Amino acid sequence: MPELDFYFDFSSPYGYLASERVDALAERCGLSVYWRPFLIGTAFKQTGQSPLTEQPIRGDYFRHDMDRCARLQGTPFKLPEKFPYAAVAPCRAFYWINSFDPKLAQKFAHDVYRGYFADGLDMSNPETVIATATRHGIDAGRIRHAMTDPKWKQHLREVNEQAIERGAFGSPFFFYKNEPFFGNDRMDQLELWIKSQA
Amino acid sequence: MPELDFYFDFSSPYGYLASERVDALAERCGLSVYWRPFLIGTAFKQTGQSPLTEQPIRGDYFRHDMDRCARLQGTPFKLPEKFPYAAVAPCRAFYWINSFDPKLAQKFAHDVYRGYFADGLDMSNPETVIATATRHGIDAGRIRHAMTDPKWKQHLREVNEQAIERGAFGSPFFFYKNEPFFGNDRMDQLELWIKSQA
Repeated sequence: MPELDFYFDFSSPYGYLASERVDALAERCGLSVYWRPFLIGTAFKQTGQSPLTEQPIRGDYFRHDMDRCARLQGTPFKLPEKFPYAAVAPCRAFYWINSFDPKLAQKFAHDVYRGYFADGLDMSNPETVIATATRHGIDAGRIRHAMTDPKWKQHLREVNEQAIERGAFGSPFFFYKNEPFFGNDRMDQLELWIKSQA
Repeated sequence: MPELDFYFDFSSPYGYLASERVDALAERCGLSVYWRPFLIGTAFKQTGQSPLTEQPIRGDYFRHDMDRCARLQGTPFKLPEKFPYAAVAPCRAFYWINSFDPKLAQKFAHDVYRGYFADGLDMSNPETVIATATRHGIDAGRIRHAMTDPKWKQHLREVNEQAIERGAFGSPFFFYKNEPFFGNDRMDQLELWIKSQA
């Protein structure tokens, strides 16, 4: 099956909105999706950007836009009070789970996103991330250990570096055979593109 | 007829792409469109932003995105070598024409945009702007005078100030009864919104 790379930050509202649409897109297009959580803070250092909600004038607009986009696509959404956060814990947990069960890792990623953006859970707290994983039968002790394991720390660093090398400067960011698409609002174009390449 | 405010910068690629779609949208929705060229450079000073093409990493992506969006909507587009430019001359000329013939001002605006983004004309040169206006039977001497008239200088300053007060920080920027939509990529949402309010 053709492959789609889906880069996202667990603290990104538009990444969350995209995550709620990507499975259906993949099914319509007959794709495998590689979920690649990363930290856009690393990219911001190179692009000179900052979180949208912290930008003068633009912040107010984008808060409104997030709500409106979520409503339009029918996705429950409430910008958390503690926003943004450095999503190190869920990223490391994701890659550990992904190493033995990619499908489970995607379910876990959905739950992390929904927990944070729909259910008001504090995902900056590693224990909340652990609690989210145990819902899927994952052992709390094992995931807690993985989240501080140098192996997964290093893996996340490499994903971040690779993302920036490929030009992924925001979330969500898609690559289909190296064709880049940035933003939840480019998913329609992404789908047209994929179908035009078939 | 209900009214739509269409803010744009004559140097903005996405503003140009939107200008090629806004007449059809207005017809479908039964709207009057108020074209309001302004200078986003003024807004950038307050938002801390810079022209997309000058931003590290993001610049390459957005050049590609502009081309792709233009192709997809069937609009001739080539990013000029001299880009961006401070579109003071076409703005002042627009508001002068607009004061006696708004429909003609819109035709003139289309020609300024197409001249710059499709035909390779240097619109940063006031004489090119004047030449564009004379195609519509406007007297060269009169428009040349208007473009340095303190009245239209002041008018443009006021438009810029009002745009920022309303939160228009980029181009294109639409307001429908104070509901804000930023970007060529929000025109579908804008249309849904307008129809939902009917």
